[in-house]
Amino acid sequence: MSTFFEQAARRSLPAQGVVEFQRAFGSRFVTTDAVREHYGTDESPYPVCPPDAVVFPHDASEVAHAVRLCNKYKVPIIPFGIGSSLEGHVLPIEGGVTLSLSEMNRVVSVQAEDFTVTVEPGVTRTQVNEAIRDTGLFFPIDPGADATIGGMAATRASGTNAVRYGTMRENVVSLKVVTADGDIIRTSSRARKSSSGYDLTHLFVGSEGTLGIIVEVTLRVYPRSEAITAAVCNFPSLADAVQSVVEIMQSGTPIARVEFMDEHAVNAVNRYSKLALEETPLLLFEFHGSAGGVQEQIDVVREIAGDHGGTAFAWANQPEDRTRLWTARHNSHFSGLQLRPGSRSVATDVCVPISRLADCVTQTAEDLKTATFPYTIVGHVGDGNFHVQMLIDPDSRSEWDEAEAINRRLVLRAIEMEGTCSGEHGVGLHKIEFLKVEHGEPALELMRLIKHAYDPNNIFNPGKVVEWGA
Amino acid sequence: MSTFFEQAARRSLPAQGVVEFQRAFGSRFVTTDAVREHYGTDESPYPVCPPDAVVFPHDASEVAHAVRLCNKYKVPIIPFGIGSSLEGHVLPIEGGVTLSLSEMNRVVSVQAEDFTVTVEPGVTRTQVNEAIRDTGLFFPIDPGADATIGGMAATRASGTNAVRYGTMRENVVSLKVVTADGDIIRTSSRARKSSSGYDLTHLFVGSEGTLGIIVEVTLRVYPRSEAITAAVCNFPSLADAVQSVVEIMQSGTPIARVEFMDEHAVNAVNRYSKLALEETPLLLFEFHGSAGGVQEQIDVVREIAGDHGGTAFAWANQPEDRTRLWTARHNSHFSGLQLRPGSRSVATDVCVPISRLADCVTQTAEDLKTATFPYTIVGHVGDGNFHVQMLIDPDSRSEWDEAEAINRRLVLRAIEMEGTCSGEHGVGLHKIEFLKVEHGEPALELMRLIKHAYDPNNIFNPGKVVEWGA
Repeated sequence: MSTFFEQAARRSLPAQGVVEFQRAFGSRFVTTDAVREHYGTDESPYPVCPPDAVVFPHDASEVAHAVRLCNKYKVPIIPFGIGSSLEGHVLPIEGGVTLSLSEMNRVVSVQAEDFTVTVEPGVTRTQVNEAIRDTGLFFPIDPGADATIGGMAATRASGTNAVRYGTMRENVVSLKVVTADGDIIRTSSRARKSSSGYDLTHLFVGSEGTLGIIVEVTLRVYPRSEAITAAVCNFPSLADAVQSVVEIMQSGTPIARVEFMDEHAVNAVNRYSKLALEETPLLLFEFHGSAGGVQEQIDVVREIAGDHGGTAFAWANQPEDRTRLWTARHNSHFSGLQLRPGSRSVATDVCVPISRLADCVTQTAEDLKTATFPYTIVGHVGDGNFHVQMLIDPDSRSEWDEAEAINRRLVLRAIEMEGTCSGEHGVGLHKIEFLKVEHGEPALELMRLIKHAYDPNNIFNPGKVVEWGA
Repeated sequence: MSTFFEQAARRSLPAQGVVEFQRAFGSRFVTTDAVREHYGTDESPYPVCPPDAVVFPHDASEVAHAVRLCNKYKVPIIPFGIGSSLEGHVLPIEGGVTLSLSEMNRVVSVQAEDFTVTVEPGVTRTQVNEAIRDTGLFFPIDPGADATIGGMAATRASGTNAVRYGTMRENVVSLKVVTADGDIIRTSSRARKSSSGYDLTHLFVGSEGTLGIIVEVTLRVYPRSEAITAAVCNFPSLADAVQSVVEIMQSGTPIARVEFMDEHAVNAVNRYSKLALEETPLLLFEFHGSAGGVQEQIDVVREIAGDHGGTAFAWANQPEDRTRLWTARHNSHFSGLQLRPGSRSVATDVCVPISRLADCVTQTAEDLKTATFPYTIVGHVGDGNFHVQMLIDPDSRSEWDEAEAINRRLVLRAIEMEGTCSGEHGVGLHKIEFLKVEHGEPALELMRLIKHAYDPNNIFNPGKVVEWGA
């Protein structure tokens, strides 16, 4: 697991570069151990990997200045939101300067009448929702962590609402980006649609800091539904729960959320969030619409779930009950870690076409039966996306290897089923080896051509997404 | 208007290249005048511009072979669907070989349970719908013409359903593409979402044949609604109609279609399609949902329209009435042309944020008051997108100039309002001069870097979208 770190040669700022950064950023150019260590840590299982320095820009032009300096000295520059990455995205394996976006956290403007909001990259998803609460609008994308919008755009994140509202791919209207030359560009206008030129917005969404630095994001937001109802439904088996989801999706019901948890995940959540959910495979639902529309959706879902042994629904109609339920779901990464104190989490993230989901989940559950460590399975199953969280002892080589072997088999299974190695967590360091299998060398070469053209000195988060050399 | 043609140097196949094409394609390599002329014509106002030859491949590997030959001889290769482009996309201004995709028109597979369909690029939008009729699904994207799916993907097309279902941007799941090296790549898996690498799918959607040749498209399709109702509502003025749309959109009503026509467009449609619509500014609506959901939408829309002087709705509940209405709308390009026999159409295509739509349309209507030729205004106004169709005498230099000046003022007005020069028609030849204004030189340079990296010999539809040199 540490091969990335052993292989990579560090590229550090020369003394003159340090002076130039200090001159430009003063005390906001930081090289203390504590700060470097914080910015060398994420939620992945990898060891801490500190940058040489951390800089705290206040605006886009300061980011552009930092990029120009790093480009001049051919030193890596790594954007950092809040470090909730699970795949090692923010670890500066070749050293260099980490760009903390924590002080670029303003809501720039709310254009309620257009259903758009413009924010700086360090704003978190809950801060977006706080900023628009009075408008009757909400921003649906919700990875487990309270991630920053910049990080979410950079990793093409999604979450529990994606089945109805899409992912960051569908909900970033426009970006402001700093290029390697230090230019500040806008990837598109604020129009709802456009066929004016190559789609730079989608190119930067999911580029994980490897093509440029996102310094502003315009998001799509949605009217809050008149009626919202959540429910929990327990199932006799994992297969029954998943098959229900497949049929619900195939019915075309516009369900807002449908989340799967296996009995281990339910157990973890009960302990961590002090809930009393019945510890069987279950589905968490949320229905958005008019009062009548929600009832229509519930009727369809109830019938399908009933056909698969789903027990009576437990309803969460009050906002505080719903919040409690979804907060517990969002904390499942942390509640899982508590199943084994001192453990680190190796997370899988495959996504397959819905028609293959039941096969993929049941084969994976079968494969996990002999696992020597605790694990949970949770999933945004309406999208065909699920996660196995494997709780390993970070000091045990054999557990690392076992977890990686399970992940590898799962990824190959998903790709065989016309799926992807990563539904929403991104590539980072952890999925890089699978891109060739998933996309094939000629497609990977098209990605690499863009990387080379946009970042000729390989300064933007090097070693992530695509390998530099063939 | 003919500067493109005068400036461009032709690059023709050498004799040896002709021999190699003939050897590979036999009688499917065609150089007769009639065929070349057909493939040098689109629906733009530009003069006919024939390629040197037309080749009719049967499958992806034949396309790859044609691309390799053109790349070897550094000769342009231009993909051609059915030639319904309005912006000169398919005109081979540097000569070369046009690749007719008319014989690649198979529906490859229907994956109804995943709501996806995979087709060859020469399949038209109505053929997709015929292929899936028995599944209860439909494909919503509907430019006026019965365009091919390859052409629609290449231009990021949309149409009347985009307000609810999105454009080709949101509805292409995956592409198979032939690269300049003759490799056949897949841009992504068939999973609903992915964060695995750079977004090649969105890069090729809207690339207008300038980065590679699309040889297969996997589309997203949707369950047909239980209830569908269409309606026509007349308004006392253009401003009233447009303001109603703005308020309907801002209410969050999930309307499926909301189309604007000015009195000139209604007159043209009445004549061409033998309808008897009242000749005032009007809106055409369509509502999709459950019976209850549709009634809820109608109630909201009726109230808002009423506030703006909208008269009683004329309902089209029967499928044949709806078909008649939408066919008339889809034929508005041709019905407009009939207003002035012998004319050609200069079409505008701006799209602005919905909050600016009323301003943009009314200022444009004001600007058109002194126009010396007939015109119509129609629009996919729920998206903020509208078209002025100016019917000019193609032999009149002054009418050309007048139309282009109106278009230029409109584009600058839209860009000033945070909008785009092209909502759905694409860039082609006609919008290329506006990309710098809309995107700025540094962003345009990012587009050009991709063009240079993907197509080093500038063979793929040269002279479109981005200019080769700075």
